[in-house]
Amino acid sequence: MSKIATLEDFFVHELTDIYGAEQQIVDALPDMLEAATSDELKAAFEEHLEQTETQVSRLEEIFAMLEMEPPEDAFCKGMEGIIKENSSLLQEDIHPSVLDAALICGAQKVEHYEIATYGTLAELARKIGRDDVADVLTETLEEEKEADDILSGIAESIVNNVATAA
Amino acid sequence: MSKIATLEDFFVHELTDIYGAEQQIVDALPDMLEAATSDELKAAFEEHLEQTETQVSRLEEIFAMLEMEPPEDAFCKGMEGIIKENSSLLQEDIHPSVLDAALICGAQKVEHYEIATYGTLAELARKIGRDDVADVLTETLEEEKEADDILSGIAESIVNNVATAA
Repeated sequence: MSKIATLEDFFVHELTDIYGAEQQIVDALPDMLEAATSDELKAAFEEHLEQTETQVSRLEEIFAMLEMEPPEDAFCKGMEGIIKENSSLLQEDIHPSVLDAALICGAQKVEHYEIATYGTLAELARKIGRDDVADVLTETLEEEKEADDILSGIAESIVNNVATAA
Repeated sequence: MSKIATLEDFFVHELTDIYGAEQQIVDALPDMLEAATSDELKAAFEEHLEQTETQVSRLEEIFAMLEMEPPEDAFCKGMEGIIKENSSLLQEDIHPSVLDAALICGAQKVEHYEIATYGTLAELARKIGRDDVADVLTETLEEEKEADDILSGIAESIVNNVATAA
């Protein structure tokens, strides 16, 4: 029998992927928070860090709903790549006036990875007859979309200030 | 002077990033196309491969509009991570009935990375007074969003068939 033989198996595979990703984000966000120069962006990253910690707990709740232990070695290669890219951007010689725009761009790549994955997960949960699980996933999906919108709004005001200052 | 001193510099940095990403996608899509089992998904990947090649040319056109040579060593670490994740999924022992759903999930992660990046790029292009460049970028952004919707539609019909067959 295949290791991923059913939609249920694939669902657990993706759930493990995003469980790893969320924990990698919790580890990566403090560096972005520290690098941010505007108070508005710092506050947004701080709030998003707390939200991400809640999202990790919510995934643990889903593993419990499925009567499974959350995997200890969950690791997401996609998120690893995005975080690597964001870290190397922070290591570039980048002027403070442009830094926040760059941080937001990196954070939106993180958000969109999550939007894609939670979208698939919520869809799969409904297909395998677990509307209860889909509802929990949709809550996070909506938070990720909202976080993306908030970042777009901050980007707009920051970039306008840069343009005005130039 | 900083290496990334202005919004223009950051724009070129992100343009280079997505120029690398698009070429990495052109290299990766044939394996996904070959692995797909449904004719509908194979056709969608085939069309998206052609579209991605057009998007590479469109980026070269933008470098020309900026009177720059397209960089020869463009490489996107974020896309590298997503492609690595998709490749290792293909190497799993995965049942053919679930394979297409898994491929679509991977492809949507690619699409969302691009949606995030082209969204930022189009916004930045307008801020630096290059509406002509923003229009070209928006064309690709809309194609990526449409590709994501098409994949969601195919996922729905494929997953329904798996549920019916079970």
